[in-house]
This record gives sequence, C-alpha cells and structure tokens, in this order.
Amino acid sequence: MTGAGTTLDDALSPARLETFADGVFAIAATLLIIDVSVEAPGAELGAAIVQAWPQYAAYGVSFLLIGIWWLNHHTVMAVVERVDRPFLLANIALLGCIAFLPFPTRLVADHFRDSGVGPAAIAYGLTTTAAAFWCLVAWYYARAGRRLIAATADARQIEHISRTLIPGVPINLAATALTLLNPYLALALFAAITVFYALGSARIGRSGTRGKTNSPT
Amino acid sequence: MTGAGTTLDDALSPARLETFADGVFAIAATLLIIDVSVEAPGAELGAAIVQAWPQYAAYGVSFLLIGIWWLNHHTVMAVVERVDRPFLLANIALLGCIAFLPFPTRLVADHFRDSGVGPAAIAYGLTTTAAAFWCLVAWYYARAGRRLIAATADARQIEHISRTLIPGVPINLAATALTLLNPYLALALFAAITVFYALGSARIGRSGTRGKTNSPT
Amino acid sequence: MTGAGTTLDDALSPARLETFADGVFAIAATLLIIDVSVEAPGAELGAAIVQAWPQYAAYGVSFLLIGIWWLNHHTVMAVVERVDRPFLLANIALLGCIAFLPFPTRLVADHFRDSGVGPAAIAYGLTTTAAAFWCLVAWYYARAGRRLIAATADARQIEHISRTLIPGVPINLAATALTLLNPYLALALFAAITVFYALGSARIGRSGTRGKTNSPT
Amino acid sequence: MTGAGTTLDDALSPARLETFADGVFAIAATLLIIDVSVEAPGAELGAAIVQAWPQYAAYGVSFLLIGIWWLNHHTVMAVVERVDRPFLLANIALLGCIAFLPFPTRLVADHFRDSGVGPAAIAYGLTTTAAAFWCLVAWYYARAGRRLIAATADARQIEHISRTLIPGVPINLAATALTLLNPYLALALFAAITVFYALGSARIGRSGTRGKTNSPT
Repeated sequence: MTGAGTTLDDALSPARLETFADGVFAIAATLLIIDVSVEAPGAELGAAIVQAWPQYAAYGVSFLLIGIWWLNHHTVMAVVERVDRPFLLANIALLGCIAFLPFPTRLVADHFRDSGVGPAAIAYGLTTTAAAFWCLVAWYYARAGRRLIAATADARQIEHISRTLIPGVPINLAATALTLLNPYLALALFAAITVFYALGSARIGRSGTRGKTNSPT
Repeated sequence: MTGAGTTLDDALSPARLETFADGVFAIAATLLIIDVSVEAPGAELGAAIVQAWPQYAAYGVSFLLIGIWWLNHHTVMAVVERVDRPFLLANIALLGCIAFLPFPTRLVADHFRDSGVGPAAIAYGLTTTAAAFWCLVAWYYARAGRRLIAATADARQIEHISRTLIPGVPINLAATALTLLNPYLALALFAAITVFYALGSARIGRSGTRGKTNSPT
Repeated sequence: MTGAGTTLDDALSPARLETFADGVFAIAATLLIIDVSVEAPGAELGAAIVQAWPQYAAYGVSFLLIGIWWLNHHTVMAVVERVDRPFLLANIALLGCIAFLPFPTRLVADHFRDSGVGPAAIAYGLTTTAAAFWCLVAWYYARAGRRLIAATADARQIEHISRTLIPGVPINLAATALTLLNPYLALALFAAITVFYALGSARIGRSGTRGKTNSPT
Repeated sequence: MTGAGTTLDDALSPARLETFADGVFAIAATLLIIDVSVEAPGAELGAAIVQAWPQYAAYGVSFLLIGIWWLNHHTVMAVVERVDRPFLLANIALLGCIAFLPFPTRLVADHFRDSGVGPAAIAYGLTTTAAAFWCLVAWYYARAGRRLIAATADARQIEHISRTLIPGVPINLAATALTLLNPYLALALFAAITVFYALGSARIGRSGTRGKTNSPT
C-alpha cells in the first residue's frame, strides 16, 4: 500500500499543476468580462457607458488581482520541485477561491451605488482572504522540512516568498473589517493593495534585473 | 490502409490529450461560478448573500469534485505511454460528462429548497456515474494486455489505479438511488464522498512521501 | 524586407499553435453547457428535465463533433513541421468556425420542437461546412509542394489525411441541403456522421495498433 | 533584498507567460460566441438569423483581431529570452484589454442599427487603442538596452517588430476619432485594418518562406 502510494505520488508532476492552474487563472480573469454589461436605448448609450465606470474599475482591479496571484503562484512553483496530493488539494482550494472571484466582483459592480455595497465588499474581502489563506497553507506544507522544495532553491529566496505571502491574510482581513466602517474606503483599499503590490513587485523585479548586471557583492 | 492507420496512430500523443483534458477540467471548474448569482435590492443584499449558501456549497463540492477527477486523470496518464483513437474517444466521453457537471450543479443549487431537489440530485448522480463509467472504460481499454501502458509501469501501481477506479460506478449509482429515499441525504453523501476521497488521497499522498524518505523494505 | 519576413516566420512555432488550438477546442466544447438549461417549478422539474432531452442530444453531438475536430487537428499537426502566417490564418478561420458552433447548437436545441428547426439546422450545417472548408484550405496550403510538411512524414500518411479531409465539405453541404426536405432527417444525419466518424476512426485506430504487433508484409 | 529580487526574477519564465497568454487569447476569442444570440418564434427564425448578420460580422472581426494579436504576441515572444515583473505587468495590462474586447463587441452588435452605434464604436476603438498602447509599452521595456531580448535575436528582426507595433496606437486612435464623423465608416475601417493586417502578414509570411528556398544574395 505504501509502495503504491509512492508510485502514485511520482505520477503527479508540477508541470501539469501549472497547466491546470494557468488555465484556471486565465479563465477566471477572462470570464470577468461576461458580467460587464450596459443596457440602454441607443440615444442614451453614450451616457450609460460612461456611468458604468464602476463595472470597468471592478473588472480592472479583479483582472489585475488575478494576474498578481498568477505571478505569485509562478514564484512559488519555481522553487517547488515535486508535488504530492495534499499540496495539490491546497492548490485546488486556492484555485477554487480565485475562480470564485467573478461572483463578488459582480456584486460590487452591481451594487456600487446602493446600500448593497457593504455586503458586496465583505463578500469580496472574504474571498481574497480565503485565497490568501489557502496559498499560505500550500506554501507552508511545501516548505515544512523542505518537503517539496528543490534542493537548489536558495534559503533567502524561500524566506522572501514567506515574507511576501504571510501578510496576505491579515491585510485582506483588515480591509474586509474596514467595510463595516466605510465600504468605499475598503474598496479603495482593495484597489490600492492590488496596484501597490503590482508596482512594488515591479520595483523588486527591476532591482533584481539591475542586480544581475552590476552585482553589489 | 493498415499502414496508414498505424502512422495516423503514431500522430496521437499523450501530451496533447493532457493539454486538452487539463483545459476542459479547468474550464468546467471555472465556469461553475457563472451560475452563482444573488439578485436582491441593496437593502436586502446581505441577507440574500447569506441565504444563498447552497449555491456556494454546490460550487465548492463540484469544484473539488472536478479537481479530484483531474487528479485521477493525472494518475492514469502517468502510466499511459501512448494513446490511440478508441482511448481518446473514451476520454472525450469522460470529458463530456465532466463538462456537463455545471448543469446539474445549477439544478441542485436552484432547487435546493423546493421539491425539485430530488430530480436535480438524480441528474447530478447520473452525471457523476457516467463520468465514472467512461473513466473505467478508458482505463480497462488501456490496461487490457498492457495495450497503452508504459513498460516501466509498476504492476502494483496499475493494480492500485484499478482498485481506485472500480468502486466509482457502484458508489455513485448507490448515492443516486438514495435520492429516492431522501435527496438531502444523497446530496450529503455526494459531498461526503468528494471530501473523504480528497482527504483519503491526501493521506495516501502523505504516506507515499514518507515512503520515499524511510523505505520500509 | 524579405530577410525580416524570414526571421519573423521562424518565430512561429507549431507548439504555440497547438496550445492556442487546444484552448479553443476545449473552451468551445465546455461552453456548450452554458446553453443547457431547464427552468421549471420544483414540482415539474423531473418531467422538465426528461423533456429537455434535445438539449442533451445537441450538447452530446456538438461535444463529440468538437472532440473529433480536435482529433483531426491533432493528426494534421503531427505531420506539420513548421508553420507560417497564411497557415496560421487558415487555422484561425477554422477555429473561428469551431468556436461559432455553440450558437447554432443552441438554436437547434431551442427550436427542436417548433418550425424554427429548419433554419437552425441550416445554420448548424453551414457552420460545420465552413469548418471543413477552412481545414481543407489549411491542409492543402501546408501540403502543396510539402511546404510545411516534415521531411520524415510518410507519403501514404499524407495521402490518408487528404482522403479523410476531402469528403468533409460535400458531406456537410449535402446534409445541410437535406434540411430543406426534412430538418429532422438532416439533424439525424449530422449526429450519424459524427458517431460513424468517431467509430470509424476508432476502428482505424485499433487496426493501426494491431498493425504494430503483427506487421503483415 | 536585491539578491532575493534577483532570484525571484529568475523564477519567471517566458514559457508560463505564453501558456497564460495563449489561455487568455483563446478564451477571449471563444467567449465572443456567448453574446451572439437570436431570439425569435419558430416561424420567424429564418429571417431573424439572416437579419442578425451584424452579430456574425462583429464576432468574425473580433475573433480575427484577437487571432492577429495572438500572432503578434507570438512574434514578440520569439525574441524575448527572459521576463521580469514589469514586463509581465505590461503583459497583464495588454491581456486585460484583449479580454475586455467581448464587451464593446457586444455593444456594437447590439446597437448596430440604432443611434448607440457611435458610442459603441468609440468603446471598441478605445479598447483596441489601449491594447496597442500596452503592447508597445511591453515591447519598448523589453527592447530598451536589449533588456529581455535574446542575444541571438537579429537586429533587423527587432527593428521589424518595432515598425509593426508603432503604428498601432495612432491608427486605432484615428479610427476611433473617425467615429465622430461616421460610426459606420469607422467600423468598416476597424474591419479593414484587421483584414488588411491579416492579408499583409500572410504576404510577409509567404515571401519569408520563399526567402528560405531561394536566398537572393
């Protein structure tokens, strides 16, 4: 039985997880557009298109957010050498949260101008918090005793991934709690986290590239 | 003609089947969210979001179920060295059942609180039974005389896959029949099968990993 | 300019065409389920689910049809060694027809029991005819002077692909014309072509496999 | 910190960007069909299908447009040897514009015969302009000091890509502005740009292939 388990484990490859995950990331992001819609008679279409800006903002933020999650997954998988079933299940849970995102995105876009914006923002925040949680579970499972980590992976690199992923749960939970005070502030915070994370990672990326040409010793 | 058939067969690669299958698994799972929707005036949105929990439960179970099917497919393909047209057709039939799952999922979610829950649960059960059936057909076709199995594949591993796949049809059929007694019990059983299978495979995965470090001999 | 064209051409790889094509095939097939829906009060759901069988039949035939197109594409790409822009454009046109299929499928399913079945069947037939046409264009462009064919490809294999693809346009056109006589007969023919093709290719596949073990010469 | 950045950067691979991008291109193109729909009683279905031609035209142009974008991305990625976070973010922005295209496509198809065609065409044009803009940003970022370009990439090839991408923003902006004069002229121009670009690239492709067999020098 143990032997069979071992061989079954060998069957699981990081490459196929990446294909599946890239598929879910790409589809979840692209499906967001289905919920963007403007219904108006021809004469009022121009004004209706402009007025629908919360829909585009919600689309943009969620698309970028899924893109950043894809980048993070990318970064984690680069140090993961092998996968086993618990790791895959945590990944399926993470992907289930990512694929869920179009639903709260639609709620926020539809209720941006009425009193439903609060519950919608909470639904959004709980979804991103759950994604952050499962990502952390997957990572710490992989990291514990370097269970699934490549022998060649640098300790600082592993440390850096942990430092990047750990704040995810508290930050998203805090933004969700902020909804009770002011949902618009909370939504602005979700957008700001996404954009700042994107720019922040861009900066790290840039400095990294510089680091290659003129290594500081 | 036979010669042409032979060369055409050589054209078919396990890699492209995996790409196609991973695509269908990922899309079917991600499409589930399209059917999750809550329509309510702003003031009642919070309560409506909470009340819609059967939709999230249906989404969660079906997403996990498709994820586990993906894991199983993964496991089967790891010992399959080559593919031919009958095997690909059985796979297309299996994928057709997987891609069908969003429909009965939607039925169950929509009718969870009315008398339609029985027919909806039967539709769900017949779909998972059909998936289990075609998976078995594909596997036994590949396995017969080791037709498509890699020479390096371990006999115990092949036996283990068979033991994992065979109970699929009777278990799903039994859960479907249970619907006639009590549809909620049947739905709970579908959820339980999915979760237990997920946890069960996780345990096998873990023991497999341990098996690598301290092989018992 | 010619030089730049040459190098740009080198940039195009069969592998990325396969990824893109597999994506379109998988998504088009999986999207079919979005159009399958049964709306009925709980008490009538059971009967409504049974009565909706034309929807499942349309789903099944179109899913299998897209699966067979994917198999064919597979077979063609196996002898294609390099791609250029005209070949890619013909492929985009082919994929545009495949991705269009959910629309006439929905028309046939929705109008199966009213007088709209005729126009719906014609729309279906014109779509499959167009797909067959563009596939033929792509193949003959690749084949002419072995422009894109691998040097190692067997002449009989190439001949076999041509013999398989050529009947596509007239058969689909004939089935479309049959709609004017009797749309149900035409739809039955579309289903029969799909199933017979699937079984026929299965037989070829099997004989091919046998051909490997006991070569006749 | 710089060191961690460097190693994180190494984690990012062009291959996974291609998988993700191919997914978004394929899904965005295939999702276009969801918005094509004809609702009519059976007796009027034939006429309604014919009358709905602007929907098919919009589908066809946008599918081809996304296909050409996919070709362009293909061409760019062929000379890109490595990726970093800023490049990936510009790509996510580009993909966000591509995935947005089904929305203005639907607007144009729905309002082709009423006064909403103007705003719809502007929405379409701004989306393609934004895509052209982000593609240019990604390319010039990669190109600057050959930051991400393969050492083996030919200078003429790089020059050719720049010459192909630069006109994108002004041409799309001009077509958008033309909407204010005559939206139908603008839409015809969008279609013409797409078709001419497709045929133009086909010609380049062909001459490139010829260039291989009889090199002129």
